[in-house]
Amino acid sequence: MADEMTLLDAFKQTKFQVVGHGPRNVQVLKDALADTDGDLESDMYGKGKVIEDFQNKMAAYLGMEEAIFFPSGTMAQQIALRIWCDQTEIYKVAYHPLCHLEIHEQDGLKRLHNIQPVLLAEEDRIIELEDVLNVQEDISCLLLELPQREIGGQLPDYATLEAISQHCREHGIKLHLDGARLFEVLPYYGTTAEEICRLFDSVYVSLYKGIGGVAGAILAGNPDFIAESVIWKRRYGGDLISLYPYIIADDWYLSKRLDKMGQYYKDARELAEYYNRCSGISTVPSVPVSNMFHVQVELPKDEFERILLEMYENTGIGLTGSIREISDVRCYFEVSIGDQYEKVPKEALGKAFDFLGSRMLAVQ
Amino acid sequence: MADEMTLLDAFKQTKFQVVGHGPRNVQVLKDALADTDGDLESDMYGKGKVIEDFQNKMAAYLGMEEAIFFPSGTMAQQIALRIWCDQTEIYKVAYHPLCHLEIHEQDGLKRLHNIQPVLLAEEDRIIELEDVLNVQEDISCLLLELPQREIGGQLPDYATLEAISQHCREHGIKLHLDGARLFEVLPYYGTTAEEICRLFDSVYVSLYKGIGGVAGAILAGNPDFIAESVIWKRRYGGDLISLYPYIIADDWYLSKRLDKMGQYYKDARELAEYYNRCSGISTVPSVPVSNMFHVQVELPKDEFERILLEMYENTGIGLTGSIREISDVRCYFEVSIGDQYEKVPKEALGKAFDFLGSRMLAVQ
Repeated sequence: MADEMTLLDAFKQTKFQVVGHGPRNVQVLKDALADTDGDLESDMYGKGKVIEDFQNKMAAYLGMEEAIFFPSGTMAQQIALRIWCDQTEIYKVAYHPLCHLEIHEQDGLKRLHNIQPVLLAEEDRIIELEDVLNVQEDISCLLLELPQREIGGQLPDYATLEAISQHCREHGIKLHLDGARLFEVLPYYGTTAEEICRLFDSVYVSLYKGIGGVAGAILAGNPDFIAESVIWKRRYGGDLISLYPYIIADDWYLSKRLDKMGQYYKDARELAEYYNRCSGISTVPSVPVSNMFHVQVELPKDEFERILLEMYENTGIGLTGSIREISDVRCYFEVSIGDQYEKVPKEALGKAFDFLGSRMLAVQ
Repeated sequence: MADEMTLLDAFKQTKFQVVGHGPRNVQVLKDALADTDGDLESDMYGKGKVIEDFQNKMAAYLGMEEAIFFPSGTMAQQIALRIWCDQTEIYKVAYHPLCHLEIHEQDGLKRLHNIQPVLLAEEDRIIELEDVLNVQEDISCLLLELPQREIGGQLPDYATLEAISQHCREHGIKLHLDGARLFEVLPYYGTTAEEICRLFDSVYVSLYKGIGGVAGAILAGNPDFIAESVIWKRRYGGDLISLYPYIIADDWYLSKRLDKMGQYYKDARELAEYYNRCSGISTVPSVPVSNMFHVQVELPKDEFERILLEMYENTGIGLTGSIREISDVRCYFEVSIGDQYEKVPKEALGKAFDFLGSRMLAVQ
């Protein structure tokens, strides 16, 4: 922990950081509010112009009938799955072993709803059509995460999505999109959000990943589904008297960054190439399909951290603030490209990777 | 609905409103943020200086060992009751028939936790010691709401609280405080928050009622209870990446308004006297014990609304934006005193009530 704080501090002190949108601080909210009239009335428990306008805008963007703003994706997705389970009276849902609901939510789905997961595919690969065809149990719903974050943001191809969608429709299985990073994968697919979402019965998108808002999520679906979601949002205590601080900020950053997803994707591929040229370092996927990827390093975490600390101090370029252990001899970290990458001078970036590459060679 | 909008619009257009802190608009947040350094880092999923400092401050103020910030009281209280049920393995809790959990949360407690309520006292009166002594079933927890909002904000006396607390401790029943309006009742009790909270095992306070923050709540208790609460907050999707928009605003308004609760209480008693002088109008309680009370009117809702609309137009004084029907011939509304009351010129207020009184006499 002390080591990680040191790396994080060193990262923050570098002149240029290659990842993210910049510091998550109060200025992020202040900037968004500066353009907003102080007389704009708060939403009130899910009602009011500020929340309804944004929900309508997002429904239209996603090509779904209706949308509802949630304080968090955790809440939105558990509720989506519960509604589909209630509708089918089957309390089993299928998802990837590294699904957010399985590893980051303290088993909320199981403890609050008694919904049991059926895990599809191995941890290190995405769900393919065959995995879905081979499900032996009755399930109410299949959740697909695009991209699969915990394995570096991997994606099935569009034809696979279509085939899975068709199979689910033919077999009465609801298909839910964990689109925490949906905006970020559209350049790879070369489609609109609508062309992805129409394959799904319900869609969640996050507003603080690639968009870089303050917090919040959108859940979209048909009117009956959304009406049920509103009730569950109240049951969860997610129907806050005022959600406008998030909505205003999220809407503002959406307007700034939605058109930049193609650039982030291009930047991610470029940055991955820099990494893959270093001995003992490789990216997953080897060619990114969104603004994110993982970097795997054939060194113990502590040893690689020492190299990074040296590199940050010598080059002023910060690559990451946090490294995670894979084993005694391997470690990895996640990369998400945002507004910061384009500010890094290419020459300085090249020199930084020359430095990293030479250090990696020296320790192999 | 159309009628209510008309009354609400007319109320908003009056020169002076006797209730509330003023419009709930974006300026409320902007004012609070203006004093905050933009470089202050966001909290991150419940960690960080901004959230930890505020939690520590609130724990100290309430005299509880630890405190945790929640996006909503609905979430905080369901979780508190669940923890006490798990600890005692008894999935029944006792509370008032008009408890927030019973009437405003779409049965979240029952649907998410399968916890059954035991309703104490009749709807139109508060829970007394005898009600607690007479509980025939095993319960894990008793929830007391101070003040009991849905009946005008009534309160038991302090000796009753002590006796109920002692009984609960002797019988292994956890005592939870729904202190949505705890700050607001301290002037009546003439005690510190600590002197109330020490009678309870867990305490919830709201930060957007009398304090007038943007949203948010505090749940306080012992370290084991809070450690469990943190896990459940994650399960609910309440562990947002950033809660600072609420925390900063709530803290700012707390600093502005905590010391004004005595004034609000005095103002409420004064305003209640104005109402009680009008024929066919009475307050519940007849003498307020906090900043709030109910106003009951012996007229059909529509008829009383017409009188108010006339009064607002003639006097420029707004009393309420919303009336609720009790029966075909009776209606009521809730009054909460805030910063607005002191801005109303006393002479204009007197004339407005003269107008109301004469109209009420005319229709009796």
